[in-house]
This record gives sequence, C-alpha cells and structure tokens, in this order.
Amino acid sequence: MQQSMAIQHLLDEFEKLPGIGPKSAQRIVYWILNESPEDAAELADAIMNVKKTVHFCPQCFNYAEGDLCGICADPKRDHSTICVVCEPRDVTAIERTHEYDGLYHVLGGSISPMDGVAPDDLTITDLLGRLSGDEVSEVIMATNPNVEGETTAIYLAKLIKPLGIKVTRLASGLPVGGDLEYTDEITLGRAIEARREL
Amino acid sequence: MQQSMAIQHLLDEFEKLPGIGPKSAQRIVYWILNESPEDAAELADAIMNVKKTVHFCPQCFNYAEGDLCGICADPKRDHSTICVVCEPRDVTAIERTHEYDGLYHVLGGSISPMDGVAPDDLTITDLLGRLSGDEVSEVIMATNPNVEGETTAIYLAKLIKPLGIKVTRLASGLPVGGDLEYTDEITLGRAIEARREL
Repeated sequence: MQQSMAIQHLLDEFEKLPGIGPKSAQRIVYWILNESPEDAAELADAIMNVKKTVHFCPQCFNYAEGDLCGICADPKRDHSTICVVCEPRDVTAIERTHEYDGLYHVLGGSISPMDGVAPDDLTITDLLGRLSGDEVSEVIMATNPNVEGETTAIYLAKLIKPLGIKVTRLASGLPVGGDLEYTDEITLGRAIEARREL
Repeated sequence: MQQSMAIQHLLDEFEKLPGIGPKSAQRIVYWILNESPEDAAELADAIMNVKKTVHFCPQCFNYAEGDLCGICADPKRDHSTICVVCEPRDVTAIERTHEYDGLYHVLGGSISPMDGVAPDDLTITDLLGRLSGDEVSEVIMATNPNVEGETTAIYLAKLIKPLGIKVTRLASGLPVGGDLEYTDEITLGRAIEARREL
C-alpha cells in the first residue's frame, strides 16, 4: 500500500498508545488530517507541555506541577490522615468520590516478587519519613484488593503500627449496584465476614 | 479535584479525538506520563509533521506527501482505470484488498441535500477534467452503498457515460463470512437480483 510516510508514522505512534488498535489509530489520524493545523498543534503542544511541567511531588509522589502537588500544598486538607495508594491514577479515583479530604502517598507500585518489585523499589522509606513527626494519626491502606495489594498493605501495617499510628484498610464487599448472584465467592465471603448491623 | 492543569488540558485534548472517552483519555495520559520525554516528543512531532507535510494530491485528491500522491505518481499502475471514492480512507480500504491497481479519484464526500452537500462541493469538475483525454477507459463507482453514495454514483454515471467511457459499480451482495439469516432484506434482495451462474 502506497501510504504517505508521515501518515504511516503517525499511525504507528498512535498504535503504541494503550487501548488504541489499528482501526482506532486510523480513525484518529484521518480526524487529525481533517482538523485545522492549530487544533493539531494544540494536541501536540499539550503532550510536550505535560512532559515538561509535570513531575512527581517530592512529598507524596503524586503528579505535580508546582513544588508540591495541589493536594499536599492545600492547607484546607486534613494533614493528619495519609491514604496510601499504588499509582497516581488511584489518587484520581479516590478524589472522584469526594469522600476523602486527607493527604496521599503514592507507592509507585505494589510488592510483587513475581514481577521483581521489592519493598525497596517503592517509596516506603519516604512514607516512613512522613510518619516520623506527630502530625499523622491515621494511615489508610488503599492498595488494590488483590494479592500484591494485600501483601503490600500487610507489610506496611507491620512497619507503621509500632509507631503508634492507626492503620486502616479499605472495606471489601459487594460492589454497589452489583448482583449477589454474579459476585465471586471470595468477595461474597468477605462481605459476609464484614457484615454490619442495621 | 485538584488535578494538574497540564494533565487536565491533555485529557481534554485527547477526549476530542474520535472514539476516545474519559476513561481511554486517562489511560493514555497516564501512559504518556510514564513514558520517556523522547517517546512523547516523537508522538507530538508525528502529529505536527503530518499536518506540515501531508496535503491533497492535485490530481486525485487523496492525501499526498510529494507533488502527486504515491498512487498517481506510480507508472506501474493502470492509468486507464479510475476508481471514484468518497474519502481518502476509502482508498486505504481498497488498497488493502490488493485487488485493484488502477488510479483513484477522491470526491471529498457524497451528494447529500440533507447535509447541504451539493455536486459543486465535490471534486467532480476535476474528475471530468481527468476524463477529457483518451487515456481513461473505465470509471469504477466505489461510493458507499447507501442513499447518498448511490445518488452520487448515478449522478456521475449520467455525466460520464456520454463521454464514451465505461462506468461500473461495486457489486452489492452478501458479505463474505456473513450469515444469510441475519442479512438485511435489501442486501439479500440485491444478492438475489445480481446472482451469478456457477
């Protein structure tokens, strides 16, 4: 096929993105070809800009633009609670609930010997550093509810509890709007175990 | 939510793309944040490059990088046959079949009074210009098999036939690998009408 080199190159670049197959890449590339040069430049600039301005917050390791991230820098947030998550996208997910107004700590992954991720590869030392003062009274473990996430939560709890800080874990149970019949037995088991009085 | 401005802007830009919703945009943006600055620059450059170098072929109105597009400029292709399509992506679709080695003519749409597209909005004058010599002996109508595409094909056939040039239309019928039971009645009717002797 005698495709333009520039078009083929852009198709290849878009196909590298997660969730973008050949058909989606083609649709996007033809859309870009139809757009004004200004609109295309805006997309290209936004990509360059995000790489230039966004870095890790030196305190919580979430993505940040200023010195600290917007959450760490906000004096109105509750600085006595730290929610520990694996990835920056987990911060976004929890922020969307509007149920939490404490701080975060992004580990940068979870302990997984299978994938060669040891505790030293995560920002655990930095987390312990944040707990050395008197300010923090609770650490919420919001690692993923899978083997790696549970392992990480248990590992951290063992390190943090001796500091006299309360360590909690997100509840496991039935997803809201879910169907009991289609819930897997482990989740259902957890939901029974953690049942609450009405 | 205290999202970085640069991240939010990139999310907005990606959500503008066809087939990209908020979830896909977020997945892509976090992927870009994880990539090296060089990889991100390559994507941004590819976008800018395609807008800078790609233009319409002055002969067939397909996307082109050089003076003429790769197909028009290829002396090995059959210059006596022109396949008329609505959009550049239709050229890509036909090239993928490896069944056609003639030239193309991209109309830039199809006649559609409902959408305000009149014959003058398409590259019909340019097509007729290409047919004025003796070189072209067949024009294949490969407009879409819908009302607008059929209308356009019939309109063009009326203009081209008086020039003594053969005008053909892509066959309608059952899609290969399809199921007779689930084929709509119009397609099935066409398939019966256009049945061939075995």
